[in-house]
Amino acid sequence: MKLSDAEQKQFDEEGYLFFPGRFSPEEARLLKQAADDVYAMDREEVWREKSGDTYNEPFRRLGSHPRLVDPVSQVLEGDVYMHQFKVNAKAAFDGDVWQWHQDYGTWKRDDEMPEPRAMNIAVFLDDVTAANGPLLFIPGSHKQGVVEAGHDLSTTSYPLWTLDNALVKQLADRGGCVAPTGPAGSMLMFSSLLVHASPANISPFDRTIVYLSLCHVDNHIRAFNRAEWIAHRDFTPITALEDDCLDELVAAQLAAAE
Amino acid sequence: MKLSDAEQKQFDEEGYLFFPGRFSPEEARLLKQAADDVYAMDREEVWREKSGDTYNEPFRRLGSHPRLVDPVSQVLEGDVYMHQFKVNAKAAFDGDVWQWHQDYGTWKRDDEMPEPRAMNIAVFLDDVTAANGPLLFIPGSHKQGVVEAGHDLSTTSYPLWTLDNALVKQLADRGGCVAPTGPAGSMLMFSSLLVHASPANISPFDRTIVYLSLCHVDNHIRAFNRAEWIAHRDFTPITALEDDCLDELVAAQLAAAE
Repeated sequence: MKLSDAEQKQFDEEGYLFFPGRFSPEEARLLKQAADDVYAMDREEVWREKSGDTYNEPFRRLGSHPRLVDPVSQVLEGDVYMHQFKVNAKAAFDGDVWQWHQDYGTWKRDDEMPEPRAMNIAVFLDDVTAANGPLLFIPGSHKQGVVEAGHDLSTTSYPLWTLDNALVKQLADRGGCVAPTGPAGSMLMFSSLLVHASPANISPFDRTIVYLSLCHVDNHIRAFNRAEWIAHRDFTPITALEDDCLDELVAAQLAAAE
Repeated sequence: MKLSDAEQKQFDEEGYLFFPGRFSPEEARLLKQAADDVYAMDREEVWREKSGDTYNEPFRRLGSHPRLVDPVSQVLEGDVYMHQFKVNAKAAFDGDVWQWHQDYGTWKRDDEMPEPRAMNIAVFLDDVTAANGPLLFIPGSHKQGVVEAGHDLSTTSYPLWTLDNALVKQLADRGGCVAPTGPAGSMLMFSSLLVHASPANISPFDRTIVYLSLCHVDNHIRAFNRAEWIAHRDFTPITALEDDCLDELVAAQLAAAE
């Protein structure tokens, strides 16, 4: 699952790559069910158990899936560990907004991650359309390094270092503003320096996305200011599973249903 | 500029038609400049003068343009007058939301418009993308007639009769939810019964849309509860201009610039 030269060049220039339908509809359905299961349980406990054996099996396998581990290891040039794992269930009629920010801005300032040798993966568990609040990117903004930001303590579920509007406008006048859309199972890979935001979802359909943040093992965080289940402290290198690791679970479910 | 049989059938079924690039980039630029001119003036006075001779000339011509008057007269089967004219400059980083509603719901309840023999036209003056808050439609929802709604006095710049989320979800489970996107100059024609909404624009780019509401002359409003510049009281039938009426102004500007 390595990136081609053209993909690597595109990633260098734009700071992200989009893979529509990277996971099959069946794999996406399995993961959406996993998200529903997680949400049906007590939230904090679920996150706390995240690195434990009892954690949700489809998500455990997703976190070691070669379709995301291989390209990220390739770009970061070495073994990676998982710094964050989030399910963002932006439900229908959910007004929450994530202001313009760089993830590495927060990881550097709050977690003392030494370098931006880390990458985000977003896997769509619902169809993401122009109607249900797609993720917004400023292409090329990752080339600016860590830009000026203020600490927003109120908008989102945890504090975030966010950019002011004038700076976002200046970056967008250069690189534009895109909103990749595609069916459930699509995957985005984007630089931890890419400036991005996420609008409200006023549509009647959910927009669930799983975010996995992978970091080079040498680049692990140095400060433990945030809870372990927000900024992980287990720096064990991920070993990629086989490509059919989710399909196995799909097949097992089908067999059990017969 | 009449609708084909296929277009009429599609309109009957879905409650809207989308015409990407209905106006040329030059015409769209002329109208965007007109919007900027309007916004540079004192707002209420501008609207009050709307039916007067001093009103902005590009917008006056747009209101009689055959590319919108002809198809609307065709569907409404007769002469039309202009019930409303709005420039919705959803500027970059503008958090305003228009909740789910039917325009005719408000026109019936507040203005005593007898029947839904009225139609909306939206002309994009900026590129409308998945990123900058496109209009959201529930296809087929116009077939439900006037649905239950509550009077929302706080969200928008004037009170609106809005649907609750359960009803929107129920309609969308049948018809889906779409967000037509396209370049500046694109045009939407949609039933005054179509359930629609408009999300915030958190992107760094403007999303200006001109809305024209045309009503059959026999179906004019009976109650004058709202200001004249919000619900017009001049029921004079519109006579369509020539198709090049905006191009004339573009050409005149070019000539003046030489």
